[in-house]
Amino acid sequence: MRRIRVIGIGSGGLDQVTVEAVRAMNEVAYFLVTDKRGKDGAPDPLVVARGEILARHLDHEPVLVIVDDPERDRSADGTRSAADYDRAVSDWHAARTDAWEQALLDHDGDAGFLVWGDPAFYDSAIRMLDRVLARGRVEGEVDVLPGISSLQVLAARHRIVLHEVGQPVHVTTGRRLAEAVEQGQPNIAVMLNRSLEPLDDLPDWQIWWGANLGTEHERLVAGRVDDVRAELERARAEVKAAAGWVMDAYLLRRPS
Amino acid sequence: MRRIRVIGIGSGGLDQVTVEAVRAMNEVAYFLVTDKRGKDGAPDPLVVARGEILARHLDHEPVLVIVDDPERDRSADGTRSAADYDRAVSDWHAARTDAWEQALLDHDGDAGFLVWGDPAFYDSAIRMLDRVLARGRVEGEVDVLPGISSLQVLAARHRIVLHEVGQPVHVTTGRRLAEAVEQGQPNIAVMLNRSLEPLDDLPDWQIWWGANLGTEHERLVAGRVDDVRAELERARAEVKAAAGWVMDAYLLRRPS
Repeated sequence: MRRIRVIGIGSGGLDQVTVEAVRAMNEVAYFLVTDKRGKDGAPDPLVVARGEILARHLDHEPVLVIVDDPERDRSADGTRSAADYDRAVSDWHAARTDAWEQALLDHDGDAGFLVWGDPAFYDSAIRMLDRVLARGRVEGEVDVLPGISSLQVLAARHRIVLHEVGQPVHVTTGRRLAEAVEQGQPNIAVMLNRSLEPLDDLPDWQIWWGANLGTEHERLVAGRVDDVRAELERARAEVKAAAGWVMDAYLLRRPS
Repeated sequence: MRRIRVIGIGSGGLDQVTVEAVRAMNEVAYFLVTDKRGKDGAPDPLVVARGEILARHLDHEPVLVIVDDPERDRSADGTRSAADYDRAVSDWHAARTDAWEQALLDHDGDAGFLVWGDPAFYDSAIRMLDRVLARGRVEGEVDVLPGISSLQVLAARHRIVLHEVGQPVHVTTGRRLAEAVEQGQPNIAVMLNRSLEPLDDLPDWQIWWGANLGTEHERLVAGRVDDVRAELERARAEVKAAAGWVMDAYLLRRPS
């Protein structure tokens, strides 16, 4: 049975991949890589970063099958309407499913998907493969290898545990941050951040923030939100300018 | 400056350690290993498991400094009193801090701590080292390397994302499960499980459960809680009998 391997590769640190992930990368016949190339034709920086990980860990030249990533409608992302958001994501998944199905039909052998971070957190690869296989045209067995998520690199770099003794940690997105605050969560980890503005409502909370974690452009900031708010905005802009992209994550802890 | 390296080693899969963790293991002068040897003198199975990971990834014989683990008062664990629980954990941490401080004073060079899973989730190593360093007798720089947590192996084995699109996942302990259910959490991941009894109140929820994830004794069960409740109890007992220890984790999803 053909394997379709979903391989978590960490958040960018070249050696923050597991030994089993390295073995899997060396075993697959080819990699399906989605490309978010800019309209100006500039290379997708995350495709470049994946290439660096392969260059470091593969004992042969990788075969890359580039799948152009369909445009996603982000117009609803900033609103509070869950229905609009879900529909935009769902349309985007359907278009991606078509593209991936075709790529799998066009290429034989075990396929590899390199997933940024861990496939278990805020990633669509598993769901899309479930859809592809449900259609019945592609046969195969999905195999998932966990990877280090940015949240874990964040905690490691700041040398913190994500929660106090015996307490929960609530992992969510930037859009749902206010909801978690209202629930009274003591520790909130935000993994899909698009803007730092929601922090303006939480001046007394502690924040541990990081961008492009594990990469050469990594940047860390920690402190009371109000004290570091301007520094965060500056750091985020600087990382984006230097790396060409910025992915950030943070932990917030309620003031005691 | 001497380094004290906190190395996440995953939940038991020999190759579910990162490449940077393997390098760190090879660089430290010795490992501090806490030993929970049974009263009958039986070896601590987690010490044995760590030894297997070292045997696989070290290019030399490891130097192991065994630190006897102080007894922890577990009498309060089953109650709902947070104060009792916190005090029991705090006393235990103080006794461990004494033992670790002495071990670090007795042995020169970079020290390694092998942490089960990821040091960022429900582990006391970072807090204890903070205490040791705050006392001022030991000098050193703490360095944390993230590891794959059991929760991630659980998701990978079941080939699931821990949450629906854009939803949060709430990570907590078995004792706080009821609290998370009351909050209306849609996805609850339980990492420190001591008993499956709290599931009796959630017959219609979906569960993805795993024990001794990543090891040869790994066991998975998934389904509607009420349908798999007896199977879970049986599986947990069987794993414990076969491996000599059981560590389980699960994801619960609220019925829609």
